[in-house]
Amino acid sequence: MKLVTYRDGVEGEARLGVVQDDLVIDTAELGQSFGEAMPDSMLGLIDAGRPGLAALRALLDQIGNVPPIHTATALSSVTLLAPIPKLRKNIFGIGLNYTDHVTESARALDTDDSLPKQPVIFSKPPTAVIGPGEPIEHNAKITQQMDWEVELAVVLGSTASRVSRAEALRYVFGYSVMIDVSARDNRRAGQWIYSKGQDTYAPFGPCIVTADEITDPQTLELWLTVNGVEKQRDTTAKMLFKVDELIADISQGITLEPGDVIATGTPAGVGAGRDPQEWMWPGDTVVACVEGIGTLRHPIIDATPD
Amino acid sequence: MKLVTYRDGVEGEARLGVVQDDLVIDTAELGQSFGEAMPDSMLGLIDAGRPGLAALRALLDQIGNVPPIHTATALSSVTLLAPIPKLRKNIFGIGLNYTDHVTESARALDTDDSLPKQPVIFSKPPTAVIGPGEPIEHNAKITQQMDWEVELAVVLGSTASRVSRAEALRYVFGYSVMIDVSARDNRRAGQWIYSKGQDTYAPFGPCIVTADEITDPQTLELWLTVNGVEKQRDTTAKMLFKVDELIADISQGITLEPGDVIATGTPAGVGAGRDPQEWMWPGDTVVACVEGIGTLRHPIIDATPD
Repeated sequence: MKLVTYRDGVEGEARLGVVQDDLVIDTAELGQSFGEAMPDSMLGLIDAGRPGLAALRALLDQIGNVPPIHTATALSSVTLLAPIPKLRKNIFGIGLNYTDHVTESARALDTDDSLPKQPVIFSKPPTAVIGPGEPIEHNAKITQQMDWEVELAVVLGSTASRVSRAEALRYVFGYSVMIDVSARDNRRAGQWIYSKGQDTYAPFGPCIVTADEITDPQTLELWLTVNGVEKQRDTTAKMLFKVDELIADISQGITLEPGDVIATGTPAGVGAGRDPQEWMWPGDTVVACVEGIGTLRHPIIDATPD
Repeated sequence: MKLVTYRDGVEGEARLGVVQDDLVIDTAELGQSFGEAMPDSMLGLIDAGRPGLAALRALLDQIGNVPPIHTATALSSVTLLAPIPKLRKNIFGIGLNYTDHVTESARALDTDDSLPKQPVIFSKPPTAVIGPGEPIEHNAKITQQMDWEVELAVVLGSTASRVSRAEALRYVFGYSVMIDVSARDNRRAGQWIYSKGQDTYAPFGPCIVTADEITDPQTLELWLTVNGVEKQRDTTAKMLFKVDELIADISQGITLEPGDVIATGTPAGVGAGRDPQEWMWPGDTVVACVEGIGTLRHPIIDATPD
């Protein structure tokens, strides 16, 4: 299933929907048309667990290609929001998780050129999240080095504490896309949260594809363009630490909770690694895609205070 | 006001109370005895803003030293919980924020010996929080270098985005104590979240003292002992970046939200900076205090998985 959080028109409540071809089928309305209670938010569906997903799937199977009246809207007419508009807790980010990116980062930034022996973990606060199409805010008083990073995002489905690598993928609800916007001149004593955690620095979406439809998350192509020019293209096969290793590793020390997001790192091609270096500026448009999930397209706007 | 989140006995719901001498006065019960609705949780009171605090204060003034029946419990008979048991979002930590600690850290760890020009920000996930007295878990498979750090914790009262230093303290709800437990051998590519963010690594409490009672947060003595031996003693006057600067600085890029916590950094005397270095081990007890707020006392226990 391809799940979206959306708004019908510009105003109105955030709703949960399933994308089928060119339509968004509203989960709550669909449930109502069958006299069944269905979650009306992504976190509600995550908390409903496997039975919740199974019940939703059963209803979708029943309707086939003919959604009941009032349950479907044209995808083109809705406003997509971040799949989880208000994250409960954490976005864990993974640094230096593609070999070629380790090399470019060591050359251009302050990181080591040897491959990390354990996942390099940082966090982005939930306040950084924006939905598809929303502007990324450029504050010239804070940064002159705003960089791009396309990443596969993993959404946790259940509480994971000290899980093994073998069982780790069972804790995944689904997959999405995140741009890990990074102000390279905002690393402080090497800490990344301020450089990567500012408001609007976590574009997230456009949907969550449930884990059953992505049986191997390590075979996905991902790419990013700035103003139409391709800057990154690689495959998740090249991750140093795979999704299952990341979940197993983090959960040895930090309990992962339903709705938490892991942004799994970016391949080579970031602006900092180019010669000369390139950055994003107001007026630019960044587009990021992970194969089989979807595309994020965001303008950069000037948000420098007076 | 000295506010606590508590449980009456070992079981039961988390409740909000005000400490007066040896008593805890339950806010919801107090409200009920006057026919007024009062928040029954710390986040509820924070969200009620200044009017909420004023209404609670007015009721407390009315009762003076004679709490109505059923509203008061002996402080000694309740279980104190973390003041905000389930943090909404973020704990922002500040590194290298006391001069002498910068020196010892540069000598013993991998940080620079020059004073930071801007606050060094990191985060601890909300899952790391434990309440007063709860054990700190030592996992020998993960760390052999568990260190202590006593810190003044600032609790945000309202949404702060791009606030000036002059207005910053108006966004503070109150002050508390946090121990920034740090596994020094868990820094990865210099990132601190895994070393400081593991489950139980954020003892928090025992109360929140409202901001009106701490007119100057830069005059508080703070100290820490391990097994009764004093390891840290200093005053918040020695912070490099004061509380108002921290709020102003973070909020330029990251919107701070009601209930967010800023752990403001630790003075010298940590285990890593000693010769020979000292660490905490199962069986140890760490006690941390900030003057005028309260004391945290925590056992370290073995939590190594098989």
